[in-house]
Amino acid sequence: MNNYKVDEWKIIEESFDPQRVEGSESIFSIGNGMMGQRANFEEDYSGKMLRGSYIAGVYYPDKTRVGWWKNGYPEYFAKVLNSANFIGIRVSIDGESLDLNKQKVVSFSRTLDMQHGLLQRSFVVELSNGKQIQVVAERFMSMARPEIAAISYSIASLNSDASIAIEGYIDGDVVNEDSNYNEKFWDEVAKGAAANCGFLTMKTKKLDFNVCWNMRLAYTINGVDSHPHSSEVEKEKYVSSNVELTLQKGQNLTITKLVAVTSTLNHPLDKLVDKSEALLDAASSAGFEALKSEHTSKWLEKWQHADITIEGDAEAQQGIRFNIFQLFQTYTGEDERLNIGPKGFTGEKYGGSTYWDTEAYCLPFYMATAGEHVARQLLIYRYRQLDKAIENAAKLGFNNGAALFPMVTMNGEECHNEWEITFEEIHRNGAIAYAIKRYIDYTGDKSYLAEYGLEVLIGIARFWAQRITWSDERQKYVMLGVTGPNEYENNVNNNWYTNYIATWTLKYAAESIAFVKSSSADRWNAIEKKVSFNTTSELEKWADIAAKIHLPYNEKLGVIMQQDGFMDKEQILVKDLDPSQRPLNQKWSWDRILRSVFIKQADVLQGIYFFEEDFDFETIKKNFDFYEQRTVHESSLSPCVHAILACKIQDMERAKLMYLRTARLDLDDYNKEVNEGLHITSMAGSWMSVVEGFGGLRIKNDTLYFNPFLPENWKSLAFKVIFRGRTIKAKFEAGKTTLTNESELPLAVFVKDTMVNIPANGVAEV
Amino acid sequence: MNNYKVDEWKIIEESFDPQRVEGSESIFSIGNGMMGQRANFEEDYSGKMLRGSYIAGVYYPDKTRVGWWKNGYPEYFAKVLNSANFIGIRVSIDGESLDLNKQKVVSFSRTLDMQHGLLQRSFVVELSNGKQIQVVAERFMSMARPEIAAISYSIASLNSDASIAIEGYIDGDVVNEDSNYNEKFWDEVAKGAAANCGFLTMKTKKLDFNVCWNMRLAYTINGVDSHPHSSEVEKEKYVSSNVELTLQKGQNLTITKLVAVTSTLNHPLDKLVDKSEALLDAASSAGFEALKSEHTSKWLEKWQHADITIEGDAEAQQGIRFNIFQLFQTYTGEDERLNIGPKGFTGEKYGGSTYWDTEAYCLPFYMATAGEHVARQLLIYRYRQLDKAIENAAKLGFNNGAALFPMVTMNGEECHNEWEITFEEIHRNGAIAYAIKRYIDYTGDKSYLAEYGLEVLIGIARFWAQRITWSDERQKYVMLGVTGPNEYENNVNNNWYTNYIATWTLKYAAESIAFVKSSSADRWNAIEKKVSFNTTSELEKWADIAAKIHLPYNEKLGVIMQQDGFMDKEQILVKDLDPSQRPLNQKWSWDRILRSVFIKQADVLQGIYFFEEDFDFETIKKNFDFYEQRTVHESSLSPCVHAILACKIQDMERAKLMYLRTARLDLDDYNKEVNEGLHITSMAGSWMSVVEGFGGLRIKNDTLYFNPFLPENWKSLAFKVIFRGRTIKAKFEAGKTTLTNESELPLAVFVKDTMVNIPANGVAEV
Repeated sequence: MNNYKVDEWKIIEESFDPQRVEGSESIFSIGNGMMGQRANFEEDYSGKMLRGSYIAGVYYPDKTRVGWWKNGYPEYFAKVLNSANFIGIRVSIDGESLDLNKQKVVSFSRTLDMQHGLLQRSFVVELSNGKQIQVVAERFMSMARPEIAAISYSIASLNSDASIAIEGYIDGDVVNEDSNYNEKFWDEVAKGAAANCGFLTMKTKKLDFNVCWNMRLAYTINGVDSHPHSSEVEKEKYVSSNVELTLQKGQNLTITKLVAVTSTLNHPLDKLVDKSEALLDAASSAGFEALKSEHTSKWLEKWQHADITIEGDAEAQQGIRFNIFQLFQTYTGEDERLNIGPKGFTGEKYGGSTYWDTEAYCLPFYMATAGEHVARQLLIYRYRQLDKAIENAAKLGFNNGAALFPMVTMNGEECHNEWEITFEEIHRNGAIAYAIKRYIDYTGDKSYLAEYGLEVLIGIARFWAQRITWSDERQKYVMLGVTGPNEYENNVNNNWYTNYIATWTLKYAAESIAFVKSSSADRWNAIEKKVSFNTTSELEKWADIAAKIHLPYNEKLGVIMQQDGFMDKEQILVKDLDPSQRPLNQKWSWDRILRSVFIKQADVLQGIYFFEEDFDFETIKKNFDFYEQRTVHESSLSPCVHAILACKIQDMERAKLMYLRTARLDLDDYNKEVNEGLHITSMAGSWMSVVEGFGGLRIKNDTLYFNPFLPENWKSLAFKVIFRGRTIKAKFEAGKTTLTNESELPLAVFVKDTMVNIPANGVAEV
Repeated sequence: MNNYKVDEWKIIEESFDPQRVEGSESIFSIGNGMMGQRANFEEDYSGKMLRGSYIAGVYYPDKTRVGWWKNGYPEYFAKVLNSANFIGIRVSIDGESLDLNKQKVVSFSRTLDMQHGLLQRSFVVELSNGKQIQVVAERFMSMARPEIAAISYSIASLNSDASIAIEGYIDGDVVNEDSNYNEKFWDEVAKGAAANCGFLTMKTKKLDFNVCWNMRLAYTINGVDSHPHSSEVEKEKYVSSNVELTLQKGQNLTITKLVAVTSTLNHPLDKLVDKSEALLDAASSAGFEALKSEHTSKWLEKWQHADITIEGDAEAQQGIRFNIFQLFQTYTGEDERLNIGPKGFTGEKYGGSTYWDTEAYCLPFYMATAGEHVARQLLIYRYRQLDKAIENAAKLGFNNGAALFPMVTMNGEECHNEWEITFEEIHRNGAIAYAIKRYIDYTGDKSYLAEYGLEVLIGIARFWAQRITWSDERQKYVMLGVTGPNEYENNVNNNWYTNYIATWTLKYAAESIAFVKSSSADRWNAIEKKVSFNTTSELEKWADIAAKIHLPYNEKLGVIMQQDGFMDKEQILVKDLDPSQRPLNQKWSWDRILRSVFIKQADVLQGIYFFEEDFDFETIKKNFDFYEQRTVHESSLSPCVHAILACKIQDMERAKLMYLRTARLDLDDYNKEVNEGLHITSMAGSWMSVVEGFGGLRIKNDTLYFNPFLPENWKSLAFKVIFRGRTIKAKFEAGKTTLTNESELPLAVFVKDTMVNIPANGVAEV
């Protein structure tokens, strides 16, 4: 059943299957937050594949493709750009091009060493002339030097001498698979080559991002430096450095290819090439092994903070490490301009843009494992885009500084193009507000409110105050025409989740104003003036809305209603669905999905998850039972929330099922789409489902709570969280919880209602 | 305020305004049902224009352009093809190309003679060398020979001799303005030219429609045949025949260009050129004047049946004649494969496809003026597409022969691409059923049921029976996730209009089954077997749904509710809208429109219009008052229904206002979009608003009723209707109705509750 061997630290592929190439290209992706790429082969491959190499923050505003234009539609759909193929090492032996799609594959193995951040591959092929060639390749994107990538590529001729030609190249003539009008997005700016070197500078259309790829090639034979004569080729958007040599039977040729990637995001245009040269000078003189060693050290350091160990369940263990690994490859928190694309650097779908996924799913992971600074960067990203959110709301007819953050964005502007998403899936605004509360709960950093948070909260609260309208008929406030988290509904009235988080925002914004007013009066005065806040009328309106909002509820069932009219639907359960009809989104027409009861992802349950304290155990259980039976989890973001709530109501069977579904979603390809890339943002949901689900972590009244419940076969679960300046390691075993405080400050926490004091640098057991 | 001179039989433009060129190209369009074109100039025009010439039934399945693909989306968006420019007569004088955009226009006038179906134009321009050139042009698409177009183009040099070069050409290198991916849709097949002759055969991509355009040119000077030496040019997709001559001051050169257009819709591929040659032989030997005379006779004959006269209000008179004229130019009912595109042959928007407009708006006009045969063709068009409608429903998950006719189609397949339209605007199915009843009411032709109608009714009824579901909660049948006629709502639950027409269909289908069963038992047995009808269970289910359907109604207001939750909207009225915000669809974002109370076009009122007999006067009045105040009429199909209901409730002021808005929509360019083409289908609504509104025509219990109410300034209103084998002319004057029976059969009608017997070939006065 598993596509890859189960191993606690590695993803291992033990044979070559052309059908699995695209899926494995996704799974074995590597990256370092600044750049990343699919696990394409260095040598040529003529079979079906998806070539992809991406640079964080380099995108293209592609003209939107719509049926009939409607007023207010965004003009472009931003997409992360596929960029130059810089890993290329073309090999030909006795004139035959090395290509796993063409030669007989004698053996093949590929390993993603997650502990050290290395992609390794080895294979033996038999050429048409009967010669057997062995390749052993290793590559990484340096975590220590984020503009450096390094490849070691070794070739041996196993059963006879062979004449070998090597072409190390950079090829900028690439396309985006998801280009709307089949355009190419890059223009060449400059290029050059000298012995064993070559660079290519390209510029993106429209936004003029300039990127320089610069390579150096070196050769050893059996470990001894070799200096074969090289010849260089320059073509349109292409440079290469080529050598030819004869390899004796049993000899081993190793090609080291170091690449520096510099861009105008980080360097002045006129210094791009020089900078890349300097980086290459330094990297070359360090050498591949030293680069690798500093890179793996960085990874070991990350694992020190972020590892989760699960004893007794290797699948679960592998799953969570794969998730954590991919998250750190995608986003490191070093750059406040960056964010987390739903597919990271592993594919093009969703355009690499920022979604509400960041606030709703990713924030806790980075907060607890990478710390306050990284989490703060994620919040500040939205603060920096507040003006654009206000513009965005104004385009939709709102005023007085109301802010609607985009559903999908690169630079703060909306860049998706379905009206039911951009105009109506406005609950994202609530998640952005809620992230501020969550950040302060975790970090205790209330100064964030005065510094940045309050302006965002006021903008969002003002949006809700205008978006919610009064129904004379109902004598309640209502919110019409929205799409909730469950995108299998569009344009509904009074989505409970949206109404709930909206009114929560109104209350939280009011409280936050009061807090800033009392704690930083000057700052409040400045903000009040800046945003022209009318303290009396605006706060009154907010309170009135919060008090009189309509929250759909079914008295008879005692269950919250996802939206008005939900019980008018035919109440069929998922278990009664013909399995041949699933996934619904591949089998049913869109209208049938829309009018059916089936739920794509947690919606009411997302709200209960966020606001758990507002609901008693019975309410949670009742709603979970009701909605879980109607949920098809066709969004990657669904199972994690269900796993957490299943733990909450102590339904360990469903919790385990949901956990595996989230943690091994891509490894086991539940949704039959791993070829398109990985579900990066949902991986943070997997982390939540372990820590908040099985670990039962909560923060209430400035205090950390654990409420562990482990699946039967898990001998132990252990993870670390950063909480208010402490790093706490929690290890849960049957009947025993061990808490280790790796900091200079003591901490009192609760474990299943028992208060436990963990001394500084000490251990407590319960 | 009027763009064109008010004249009872003509549209007259008295000056040249480059800003008005595109609008006038629409207004002055000519066609004959088989082909049609915008009023582009024969000579070159370098200013902003929209070149368009179209052939009925020749279309292209363009690849749809969508944001994110959803399951069930149609693969293509059919569009009527812009086709070869065959009117071209390029003129240059002393080497200067004649071009109204470049020369000084001394005088200009253009006339659309609606009575005779002629487009006439004359102008004088001054060349850069000071010479004044006069052109007088006339053209028509022959109603007598529908594959023939004729142009007479006269040139005089007013103040000196001039050297003139004439290039009569056919240019197939044309584009569609609304091509989704900027493709060209035509490939050249063959061409040829000889003295004063030339033909071009082109083929459409994908569907391989072949069309041959063949031209003959002839010259006279001062009425005397002239035979200047001609030279022919053939280029890619282009042929021309050219002459040069010197025109003396005051001499008049007349070019006659006859064109035959033949297509594989009507002729074998290998006979296209021969056929066009034969047509040209015949047309040439008849000559321009004879062609014109037989053409104008056909028009006079049409007016004999179809004219409406309004005395005392020239604007109203001109408006209705313009509407009738354009309708007959678009569709003549000769070909059952054809239908009525919303813009006819006057523009590309809406792709020239068939919408529900045909059944809901156009049918009565053709039924009453062109007769039973033409109306029957329109119904049979849908019958021929029943299998595709069943396939279409199956794609959306329906079975057992349920039929969903497409929202937009050329060949029976759905070819629009917005889910909220194709999947949800299913009320069109009801209009197609209702058209059958309406046809039978008008014509008395109940045989249509057994022959064609019943199968269509059963398919549609089966669709409704599956699309409507049972709500346990409500203990009622409901219809979720629809878009009603008011497209300013999407994905609503229980749109009253749709629920009403659906259950009406169920009842009417059941009655029709009973009728066919009793009147043509054999035919019923055949149908029953063909469609595998389960008489017991299906009829029971239909009856149960009809009895227990949920029809939204507000008790407190005593008003039908457009859909569930309508009163939750902010109840702002159109009169309170800031005029700067209109039209809403150009000023407001789509979501704002959706959640607002404002209605694009009659929705509840459309239902009340169709099913007027089910409602008492008070109910009609209450609902009209309620909805009219919330309707912005941003669909061309809205004012006509309002005009009819305003007459019904005797609100003559609003009736007149609505009438002018529908009848002069394009002439006065109410919606600021006449440049895109004319609103052909709404023109039939104008006819309805006169005949059913001011004339108060109804058919109840197989009897014709009139209930005239004229606006104050109308001295009289007169029109003819064909009713069950009679042609009745009704003339209404203050206090007097004159009914003339132009047939061999007497008829009893009602005028304002008084029964009147009109003798055969006789007159009755009331």
